[in-house]
Amino acid sequence: MRTCYTGLVSSEHLGQIVTLFGWVHRRRDHGGVIFIDLRDREGLAQVVVDPDRAETFKIAEGLRNEFCISIKGLVRARPAGTTNAGLKSGEIEILAHEIEVLNASVTPPFQLDDDNLSETTRLTHRVLDLRRPQMQNNMKLRYRVSIEVRKYLDSLGFIDIETPMLTKSTPEGARDYLVPSRVNAGEFFALPQSPQLFKQLLMVSGFDRYYQIVKCFRDEDLRADRQPEFTQIDCETSFLTEQQIRDIFEAMIRHVFKTVQNVDLEEPFPVMPWSEAMHRFGSDKPDLRVKLEFTDVTDVVKDVDFKVFASAANAEGGRVVALRVPGGAAMPRSEIDAYTQFTAIYGAKGLAYIKVNEIAKGVEGLQSPIVKNIHAAALTEILTRSGAQDGDILFFGADKAKVVNDAIGALRIKIGHSEFGKKQGLSETGWKPLWVVDFPMFEYDEEAQRYTAAHHPFTSPKDGHEDFLTTNPGQALAKAYDMVLNGWEIGGGSVRIHREEVQSKVFRALKIEAEEAQEKFGFLLDALQYGAPPHGGIAFGLDRIVTMMTGAESIRDVIAFPKTQRAQCLLTQAPSPVDEKQLRELHIRLRNVETKPAA
Amino acid sequence: MRTCYTGLVSSEHLGQIVTLFGWVHRRRDHGGVIFIDLRDREGLAQVVVDPDRAETFKIAEGLRNEFCISIKGLVRARPAGTTNAGLKSGEIEILAHEIEVLNASVTPPFQLDDDNLSETTRLTHRVLDLRRPQMQNNMKLRYRVSIEVRKYLDSLGFIDIETPMLTKSTPEGARDYLVPSRVNAGEFFALPQSPQLFKQLLMVSGFDRYYQIVKCFRDEDLRADRQPEFTQIDCETSFLTEQQIRDIFEAMIRHVFKTVQNVDLEEPFPVMPWSEAMHRFGSDKPDLRVKLEFTDVTDVVKDVDFKVFASAANAEGGRVVALRVPGGAAMPRSEIDAYTQFTAIYGAKGLAYIKVNEIAKGVEGLQSPIVKNIHAAALTEILTRSGAQDGDILFFGADKAKVVNDAIGALRIKIGHSEFGKKQGLSETGWKPLWVVDFPMFEYDEEAQRYTAAHHPFTSPKDGHEDFLTTNPGQALAKAYDMVLNGWEIGGGSVRIHREEVQSKVFRALKIEAEEAQEKFGFLLDALQYGAPPHGGIAFGLDRIVTMMTGAESIRDVIAFPKTQRAQCLLTQAPSPVDEKQLRELHIRLRNVETKPAA
Repeated sequence: MRTCYTGLVSSEHLGQIVTLFGWVHRRRDHGGVIFIDLRDREGLAQVVVDPDRAETFKIAEGLRNEFCISIKGLVRARPAGTTNAGLKSGEIEILAHEIEVLNASVTPPFQLDDDNLSETTRLTHRVLDLRRPQMQNNMKLRYRVSIEVRKYLDSLGFIDIETPMLTKSTPEGARDYLVPSRVNAGEFFALPQSPQLFKQLLMVSGFDRYYQIVKCFRDEDLRADRQPEFTQIDCETSFLTEQQIRDIFEAMIRHVFKTVQNVDLEEPFPVMPWSEAMHRFGSDKPDLRVKLEFTDVTDVVKDVDFKVFASAANAEGGRVVALRVPGGAAMPRSEIDAYTQFTAIYGAKGLAYIKVNEIAKGVEGLQSPIVKNIHAAALTEILTRSGAQDGDILFFGADKAKVVNDAIGALRIKIGHSEFGKKQGLSETGWKPLWVVDFPMFEYDEEAQRYTAAHHPFTSPKDGHEDFLTTNPGQALAKAYDMVLNGWEIGGGSVRIHREEVQSKVFRALKIEAEEAQEKFGFLLDALQYGAPPHGGIAFGLDRIVTMMTGAESIRDVIAFPKTQRAQCLLTQAPSPVDEKQLRELHIRLRNVETKPAA
Repeated sequence: MRTCYTGLVSSEHLGQIVTLFGWVHRRRDHGGVIFIDLRDREGLAQVVVDPDRAETFKIAEGLRNEFCISIKGLVRARPAGTTNAGLKSGEIEILAHEIEVLNASVTPPFQLDDDNLSETTRLTHRVLDLRRPQMQNNMKLRYRVSIEVRKYLDSLGFIDIETPMLTKSTPEGARDYLVPSRVNAGEFFALPQSPQLFKQLLMVSGFDRYYQIVKCFRDEDLRADRQPEFTQIDCETSFLTEQQIRDIFEAMIRHVFKTVQNVDLEEPFPVMPWSEAMHRFGSDKPDLRVKLEFTDVTDVVKDVDFKVFASAANAEGGRVVALRVPGGAAMPRSEIDAYTQFTAIYGAKGLAYIKVNEIAKGVEGLQSPIVKNIHAAALTEILTRSGAQDGDILFFGADKAKVVNDAIGALRIKIGHSEFGKKQGLSETGWKPLWVVDFPMFEYDEEAQRYTAAHHPFTSPKDGHEDFLTTNPGQALAKAYDMVLNGWEIGGGSVRIHREEVQSKVFRALKIEAEEAQEKFGFLLDALQYGAPPHGGIAFGLDRIVTMMTGAESIRDVIAFPKTQRAQCLLTQAPSPVDEKQLRELHIRLRNVETKPAA
């Protein structure tokens, strides 16, 4: 057995004979001596092979990168001037007495320390890619997060209860992955999009505190930060208020950051109503590292000559905002043009601006293509309200509220984190958590001409908002909350409806007929009739949290065997064609593909 | 917030005003006073409501079973003679000051303490069924097992790494559950039967110690102790010998039994070669609580007149055994008949026996339909070898070895655990663990005329047995091991093949062509070329371990939302038909079912 992990040999072992296992990370021949950087999951150690041990030296000469070996040798101090402070083993080296090749390696298709590999290469050779120290660290950190979550929840009496993977298809929300049933011909299971209903049922069953770190599935077109299967930290509790629930899970995230990263997140997290977040940042997940804010000027520009502003300000659902960027008057035209193109991605038709050169000079002190079409009173109000100072630039968004929020919200982040923004102190580093609360119950879907659930249809309305469900659903706020960190939503949850009559009202507001509700959610409605307790919970995206904590570029860097954006596994070549016999057993056939008739 | 769980109020709280949440388990009106047994996940407490608190009393009068309520009241000692030693709260009661109905309940379809419910009723109303204290305890114990496994493995440096649920179909072994791909028309993912190959790849990647408590899937016809989705404690390590691996996981199970049940399992577990287990017990998972053993008499009866014995003894692959049951001569004919019928289930064509009344009298002292056809020398040898004593009965199995082993092996267990067996001391209670080792590499499949893997094709041959892979596969033993407890296989594992050339030899022994091996397992063969470390592991069946520990009758009693034997969820009605649109998106159609043409 080994003495310890290779990466953990240190001055503690000076003078000892140790046995180590690992991989040849690099071999150098220098001055008639062979140096081997031996690697395992905990790091590197330097092995020295002297020619006076002829047999061992001969073996060492045959070593190539990625050979798996065991070595036995003496731990001694490195010669002065050759220590490596970057390694735990940096002060010592191991003088090899014996080396055994446990398994040779053919030449790897790439160098492990090559940082310019294509993702296709990395995913095709994932087994080697995972040997890279960064990937080893990502997976280890992911594990630390999950085990610390478990320790924390265990200490509070939460219990992990497994919910089914083969469950019922409910064609609400995202697209389901389906699994044909062999025993029940013509019927299908669905892989769960989340254990939402099961965890609510567990509360009705009286388990009181539940958690699960669980795979969920959505068959959606994949964006950079999505995977067909993803992992959720899924939690639910009974008998607690919204505030009590948030406190528990805020403390959980604080515990994880402290134990895994030794980071103290601020206490308590700030709490912001959804309406305020949209008003000030145009986003329900504002990145508070960026200090820029919107100034709403919709009411100010209704009567200006500049048509873009006036028509947006007068349109139903229109919005006009200014984004003040301190020191931005110095921006060259090329940078403004780049931002104009950037906001176009989000649907903005242009990017009006005012450079504030010298306020004291009035309109003469402003540099802008639009000021001539904005009357003085409006200009003054814009400058006052935004707090503009000499040297600032104001960018404007004027359109439907959604376009303005998306475009100027993205611009806010872009400028804040730009080189310019950092230099001007417009953003800070570190972690900025936030609770966003008081979400609307419903969003109006113009196309379908009906309300849809903003969170999900099991979310409780706020106290006093129950009547709105029938009188004015658009006005109803929900006991829903998102945890936001640096502009990412890392968790979302709500107090649930625990009374059948309220649940039925919500289904009616969503225009889900009683019969349809019964067919899809009958088992929930049924359960709510038997003394369901008040309950609520939250779900965190583990992949996303770990991506943020590791600083990985992609969620795929924190998943051992991820899928590509075409939902393929390049390592195993899944998905793949299957035998006709398998299809026959499942009572299905392919469309537009010749299949043999059933036997 | 509550003071504590209802089931945990105790004398500690005497004189305190407490707030409790829970469900009305039972309400009794006695002497003008109302008694409520209030229940939560931790147990029951007695609440007393006096009529002098008129408002509270009125609420209490309206309470029915399963109402969800909160109560506030004074903890006081129960009157002398009314304490209940069976409850943690048994010495106290709570005098209710205030009661709030959090949610009413309609009348439940059954009483929670009714022990004679059909499984259909229980699974249809699973949410209420899970409120039963036994089910609450089962789920809590299941959780304790899993968290103690995690704590133990974490302490040894194992890390939990998630492997994919959407993976590649490999139509070896059991039938896969398939998931049609939308993005890749005509192709399918498979749900994993186990993460076997991925955990081996993680070892090749250098993660050194891996575990996962993970859902696995097999689309097999369901027996009483199988589910389509089941949970595996899946582990793998590098650089350890078979003995070292077994030591780690033996200690894990010992840790779990100690921490969860306060049971000390014997240390170390006995270790038995597979051949010995088959020889002595006719089983590779012998129940060592039963003290009966086989006596092999195949060589003794080759020349007796009794055809059943002689022909089995002379046939290739035939076996004749005696099972000596001390004190069994007293068995009435009816009991022997019942055992005869029982062994017929396992394919035995009859159940020969000899009652040993008085050995000293020779053949006259034996009572049996068959002794007249067995010559004296053979009879003497049978009695001597089996150690028969006056008052014993010998049962015989004579057939193909598999039939004998199955039938007499089952009879051994049946008699050992029968009332008779217990009275005679033929079995003991408690826990009898065992390692079965040195399994054969291969089994010969008569039908397919080829060898199949006894464990799986990635199992390493024992040292010195590698040559048998080419010369005589039937003789090759494997570094495979099963952990057996009370006659159940609770875990199984092996040292894996870590060298590509050995893996290729095994594929050849299995008549898997190079091309086929490459197509199915190419990514493994590829990975083995890059310095794969020696590695091995084990997988435990969590459902089965918990079923044993709880003494549950069925594996379904330790799974929150199980499937029936027809693979259905009676609660949610999964599987179910899906929309034509969903099928179209997945490029499949139903067989023998009218579907609309694709749009």
